[in-house]
This record gives sequence, C-alpha cells and structure tokens, in this order.
Amino acid sequence: MSRSIPHLKSQFLQRLSEIVGEPGLVSDAQQKDDHDTDWLKKWHGRSCAVVRPASTQEVAQVMRLCHETRIPVVTQGGNTGMSGGATPDESGAQLILSTSRLRGIREVDPLNNTITAEAGVLLAHVQEAAQEVNRYFPLSLGSEGSCTIGGNLATNAGGVAVLRYGNTRDLALGLEVVLPDGRIWNGLRALRKDNTGYALRDLFIGSEGTLGVVTAAVLKLFPRPVARVAAWVGCDSMENLLALLALSRDTCGDRLVAFEMLTQASVDLIMQHITDARRPLANAHKFHALVELADTHENGLAEMLEGTLEQAMAAGYVEDAAVGLNIAQRQAFWKIREGISQAQVRAGKAIKHDIALPISKLPRFVADADAAVKKVKPDACIINFGHMGDGNLHFNVLMPLDTPPTEMSQTVKLLNRVVHDLVHQVNGSISAEHGVGQLRRDELRNYKSAVELDLMMQLKQSLDPNQIMNPGKLL
Amino acid sequence: MSRSIPHLKSQFLQRLSEIVGEPGLVSDAQQKDDHDTDWLKKWHGRSCAVVRPASTQEVAQVMRLCHETRIPVVTQGGNTGMSGGATPDESGAQLILSTSRLRGIREVDPLNNTITAEAGVLLAHVQEAAQEVNRYFPLSLGSEGSCTIGGNLATNAGGVAVLRYGNTRDLALGLEVVLPDGRIWNGLRALRKDNTGYALRDLFIGSEGTLGVVTAAVLKLFPRPVARVAAWVGCDSMENLLALLALSRDTCGDRLVAFEMLTQASVDLIMQHITDARRPLANAHKFHALVELADTHENGLAEMLEGTLEQAMAAGYVEDAAVGLNIAQRQAFWKIREGISQAQVRAGKAIKHDIALPISKLPRFVADADAAVKKVKPDACIINFGHMGDGNLHFNVLMPLDTPPTEMSQTVKLLNRVVHDLVHQVNGSISAEHGVGQLRRDELRNYKSAVELDLMMQLKQSLDPNQIMNPGKLL
Repeated sequence: MSRSIPHLKSQFLQRLSEIVGEPGLVSDAQQKDDHDTDWLKKWHGRSCAVVRPASTQEVAQVMRLCHETRIPVVTQGGNTGMSGGATPDESGAQLILSTSRLRGIREVDPLNNTITAEAGVLLAHVQEAAQEVNRYFPLSLGSEGSCTIGGNLATNAGGVAVLRYGNTRDLALGLEVVLPDGRIWNGLRALRKDNTGYALRDLFIGSEGTLGVVTAAVLKLFPRPVARVAAWVGCDSMENLLALLALSRDTCGDRLVAFEMLTQASVDLIMQHITDARRPLANAHKFHALVELADTHENGLAEMLEGTLEQAMAAGYVEDAAVGLNIAQRQAFWKIREGISQAQVRAGKAIKHDIALPISKLPRFVADADAAVKKVKPDACIINFGHMGDGNLHFNVLMPLDTPPTEMSQTVKLLNRVVHDLVHQVNGSISAEHGVGQLRRDELRNYKSAVELDLMMQLKQSLDPNQIMNPGKLL
Repeated sequence: MSRSIPHLKSQFLQRLSEIVGEPGLVSDAQQKDDHDTDWLKKWHGRSCAVVRPASTQEVAQVMRLCHETRIPVVTQGGNTGMSGGATPDESGAQLILSTSRLRGIREVDPLNNTITAEAGVLLAHVQEAAQEVNRYFPLSLGSEGSCTIGGNLATNAGGVAVLRYGNTRDLALGLEVVLPDGRIWNGLRALRKDNTGYALRDLFIGSEGTLGVVTAAVLKLFPRPVARVAAWVGCDSMENLLALLALSRDTCGDRLVAFEMLTQASVDLIMQHITDARRPLANAHKFHALVELADTHENGLAEMLEGTLEQAMAAGYVEDAAVGLNIAQRQAFWKIREGISQAQVRAGKAIKHDIALPISKLPRFVADADAAVKKVKPDACIINFGHMGDGNLHFNVLMPLDTPPTEMSQTVKLLNRVVHDLVHQVNGSISAEHGVGQLRRDELRNYKSAVELDLMMQLKQSLDPNQIMNPGKLL
C-alpha cells in the first residue's frame, strides 16, 4: 500500500460525505468534541469523524464502507450513558455513528398497541406519541428528555417502572438492524407471538453496539393508567421493607408500579443539597420507600394503598407513612427520589455500584456490604438507594470532592472488589441497568464464568468477525 | 476405521449405560417406540437409543460422549409438541435424550417471586409449587398435565395467558444449559435486571433443541389472582370484536387476562362433537369471544366486566353476552373453548395454520383468507379460532376423515401457500406458538429473508459446529 494514512483518511471522509452529504458530517470542532466526550465528562475519546446518517439506507452504506476499510464504528444515541459505552477510544481511528438524524416515528398502531420508532427518537417523544393515542409507553428514566430509544435498546435500559413493565428488552417486539457488513436485517415485526427461529432481536438488545447498529424498533404500548397514588414510608429494617414489598404485591398486584428504596443517609444528602426538597416524614428512619400504585380505573386506589399501609403498620413493618393523593404530593415524593443523582454530584465523588440481587437476599447483603465497606474504609459515606422492587441497588460510596485522582482510583478498585465479591456470592449482577461499556469491562471478566465469556466471544466472532463494532466495550 | 458399525453402536451404548446406569436407558421396545413417535402419531422416527440422564452432570457426560462420537441428539420433554420437533428421523442414528428424570424443583423463593425447576418438571407441577407459596405461575396450555417446562422453553410456548403475561420467554429469568460439547453453562440467575453481556438465555429459548440442552430454569412467579370473572360474547364482525378488545384493554387494563375468539363454525363443531358442551348464547353470531378478567383484589371485578359489556352493547360492538360469575359458569365457557381441539380430531383431518398478525390487521386478513381459501377450495370447512388478544389465530381447514393421504398432502401444500402468503403480506408469523420443528421447516425457508436465515445459520454454526443438536429441525 503506497498511499499515506492521511491520504486514506481524507479519502474515507470523502466517501463518507458522498453518502451522507454535508449535513451528515459534523465539521464544527466544538460539536465534534461533544460527541467525543460523554455527558459526565468522565470519558474522553477522539474519533476520526462523526457521521449522522439520515436513513437506514445511509447507515447501511456507511457500514459497507467501514466494513471495506475496517474502520471501527462507535454508535451513539443521546450520549447519556453511564458506562462510557458510546465514547470512542483516543486513537483517532474510530468513527462515531450518531443516530441523531434517525428521528422518524414510522407508525403508531393503537389497535395493535405498538409504535415503530427510529433509533434516534428521544424516549420522551415515544412517550408523547403513545399518549397522543391514549396509550402508555412505560419506559421511564431520569434522562428521558435526551436519551434515545436506540440507546435504550443497546443498553437494555431499566428505570423506575421495571417492577411492573420490565426492562427495554421486554418492551420491544421487533428490530431493524444494520449488520457490520452493511446488510440490513428487517426484523420489524409487530407480533406478540412469533416462534420462527432464534431470538435475533434479543441478541442485539443489550449488546451495546458491539454486534450491529439498531436503526428502528417496534415497541409495545400499554393501556394508559388514569389514576396514581403514592406513599412515602419509613421502616426500621430492610427485613420490614421487604415484608411491605411482599404485602403490597399480594394485595395490589399489578397496580404496584414502583417500589423505590433510600437509606436515611441518602435522604439526608438530598435534604442538604436539593434546596426545594422537603422531608416527607417527621422523624428519621433507617430505610425509606417510595411506593406507587397506578390503575386504568379511577376508583378505590387510594383506599387500597391506605389499607395496605394500615395492615403493614399493624404488623409492625412500617414506622410511619405519608400518602400522596394529588399530583403535587406525588411529584414532591418523586422530587426527593430523583434528587439523589444531583445531590451526589454536589456532595462528592461517587464510587458507584449498579447491582442487582435476588430480592430475598437484599437484607443480608446490605448488612454484609455495609460492614465490609466499613471494615476497609471506616469513615466511608455509604449512599444506598435503588429500585428495590427489582432487586436493583445503587450501592455508592461518596468520597470528598477534593479526593486526588490516584486515591480515587485506588479506592474504586478496593471497594469494587469488596462489594462485587459479595454480589457474586449471591449470584447477583454487577451491572444491573447501566451497562458494561468501558467502565465495567475488566470487572466483568473477574466474575463471568469461562464458559459464558467463551460463548459471548463466539457470538461476537460470528457476527462481527472483523471486530469493527464498538471495540473495547463490553467484551 | 476397522471396527464395524454394529460394534461401534454397541460400544456407544455401553458407554452410555456407564454414564446413566440401567434406569437411565430405555430398553423396553414399546417404551422406546413411545419416544420414537409423537403423541399425535403423526411423526414416526427411529432412534439408536433413548437415554434418561438423572442430573445435569449426567446430561453433560452424555453430551461429551455424543460430541466425541458425533452422534446426533434429539432432546425430548413431555413429547407433546405439535410440529415434530422432538421426534428423531428414521435413520436409527439419532439419540433421544429424555429429560423425564430431571424432575427436581431446586428452589422456590416467594420473596423473590421465583422458582427454579429442572427441565423435566411438568408444567402443572410448576403451577402447583407456585400455588403452595401463594404465588401464580401463569403459563397455561391444554397439555399442561403432560408437557415439561424444558419443552415449553425449547419451543417458547404460548397458551391462553400471553395477553397479560407473555410467552414462556417472558417468564424465564435464568437458564442452565448443557452445550453441544458437554460443557455446562450456568446462567441460573434469579434477577430482574442484569446487563452483563449478550442475551444467551434468549438465544436458547425457542431454539427447539438445536443449540444445546436446557437442564433447568429460573422462572418468574406473580401475585396470585383471587378473583376471576368471564363472559361469552357474540359479535357480527371482526371489526366489532376488535373494538370490544380495545375497549376492554382501556377500561380493565391488566385485569384482562384472556380474549379468545371462535367463529360460529367453530362453536357449531364443538356443539356437535363435545357431548356435555352447551351453547353459551341463544342465537348464532358470526364471531364469538371468551373474555376473562382476573385480579388480586376481590371487589368490583364483575361490575367492571358488566360495565364494559354494557358500554360495548351501547356502542353496537356486541350483539349478545353471557357473564359467568361463579366457577362453574366460567369452567363451562372454557370447556367450550378448549373443546375445539378434540372436536376437530373427531370431525375430520385438520390442515392447521398457527399464525400471528398485528392485531389491527385481523379483520381484513380473516376476510381475505376466507375468500382466498374458498376460491381454491369452494367447499372448504374453515375452522378459525385463537388467542385474538395476542393476534394469534389457528386458521384451520377441516377435511373429511376419509381423505386419502395424497389428496391431504396436496391440499396442505395448496392451502399453506394461500394462507401463508397472506400472512407474509402483513408481516405476520407462520409459526406463532407451536414451533417450527419438522412441520414448518421447509415453509420457513419460503418466507424468511436471506439475511435472517443467514444470521441463524451463522449462530447455529458457531454454537453447534458439528451439527449434532436436533438436526433436521427448525433450520
């Protein structure tokens, strides 16, 4: 090969621009920088270019070019990920394929309860399109105003409604995917039942851009709840919180749509740092829960929640509770719960663990993990909260804002080992809803069995033999 | 190779018996014949032996032996499949691996709402184990007393509760699988959230024994409904039936657990052939539906169903309806619905189509398919019924019992083409819940895109390079 690398690069960019035209290539340096860095400013990469195809056909042409030239591709949605999965490495060799121009909602079918959306559609826009036809799309995350449905699918996003509606995987019926060699797989089926071969859809969902580019999806819609009530609850132990969860499931069934947990330390942190958040209960409690019921039927929901709480108090599970019947009261509860992210950012540097356990193992785990962390770091500020109804804890440790980087990285290693070892002992997950990305890639290898890693490698090798799809992530 | 084939076979059997012992090999000729033939007596095969390992370790040893000797393996559960997927070919070279001794329920965890069952556990036993801890396992099929959970997973079984609870895929959290080379993949995770790599679980579910042997699974349990009401409804058009379905979803939400459809011809056939079934409505109606609501809460369910039906009648969707409030009345409705299988067997030879469509396309499809079938076969007796709430129709044509085999097979080909072409036009599925097996293997190739077939072949090649897992099925 006699041509120089810069020449090849300019030839590649020339061919890219022939495919996507001028609006399809990001030329502004600041804009490119925004794509090269994640929103938390934690991961910094350098791409060779940022391409924004406007259609599935353009994505396919871009992928054919990358297949031919062996240019690695990092697919990027809203760039709101938590694990660096959509940030390129620093080599300057990887292409960012942004889905930001794949914004079409191709079909809304209220009778079939489905919506067909392109990968770059914002989650909030999917929710709105559902609401316009009196339906409900339940996926709900803090970043819903800026994350894309393609990113949700790539990471199998979780959120606050998993207890009732499942993860993104459970909400998808069909996919359209551009394969690493540029072929298009049209799996956009809007069917509740289809047993005609291997679950290709599920293979691409959660694969974090390492097997192909999701360009569109058929998503499930649900009956729209017209009534909601919520309660804020204080308990003296995880065991009692768990008993309340079980009782709520028994009595309220599918109406129980959220069961969020926060420790007193988490609530205190929110009260310190979120100015307009107000304490929901008069006294301190070791554990707090935000419990929400929803129904498609107006009547009886408040009575059901109150009855459940009375029963729980009589049984000694609950110390105190406040019921929020109107929108303002419910929103005030959610403001507290959602304030935890911002409070952590303001208060310190968080060492995060995004873990999931069998729900029955939560009380013992929390006791053990608290003790184990205190043993290696007696002054640790543990901020533990999460989606308890799904067994998903964000078991974080807050370090002072001025902690030097070397101390941070040492402590991260130390605490990851302590916490993740305990998770592994109860057959839990070290990446519940935030994905593996760059953040947990090495950690994953510590805990996955050799057989499972080998199976994943085989699949990767089979579908992406040239390893051009998001190299350095997940596996 | 100087040793004769009979010698090799006897050596193979000797090594098998060393692994599983005497009770692990079926020696009785009649018993072996029962495994070699499916329950419908439609598929007849001849295996080299039937092995019944008693543990995952024994399955692993059997698979290592088969890997080494390249003996093909047909995994068999309750042998209740509809598509010949668990029947060996007639070569005498394939080994049947029966899961009938993998009958352990390893764990029931009511707080985590999970049950861990081995592959050979009967579906009815999983349901009972759930009920014992006041939980509900919703998978429900006609064959639940004899089918196994392993078979349900292998075929991603559907049934009558998919509308609310999904297919078997949606009910599984974790799997244990013995791979074609005898390695064990332990994916028995009991987690609601786990984003640590590719969805291996979903790849094995629905793969009909062509990628590995499922030996155990963690399944989801649900709050147990304590109230149920049902109605039998008569409508004059599919459009009106669809309007009733949409209204029921809107008003009853998650309480709507079944919405089954039968045409008048289907109801008539049942009345003719099922002696103790009684007409649910006084007059004839073009379309009938069985609608069921369930709830974890006692009060208000009957009023909700009655209110919905009144609203539907006022809107002109429904001609007549009977509400079943007590168990006997509900069971009488289900007796009619479930009588259709037996009625078909008694009345003739059914040419079956197990199809799924977007629900919104059902009215047009039924009109078009009726017309297209009548065009090529003016005297066709069309028996159309199914799980309308999931878009799943069993669009069958009944032939006289004395139809000669050659005429049967010609008509099957003719009608398959007519019906499946129409299904394909609306992006439907030609195998909704019964699996592909031998029955629809060739048909599948007519309708799957080259890209999708190629992806499936790649995965098969990657996970089972020696092609020893259930050859001749699915792909």
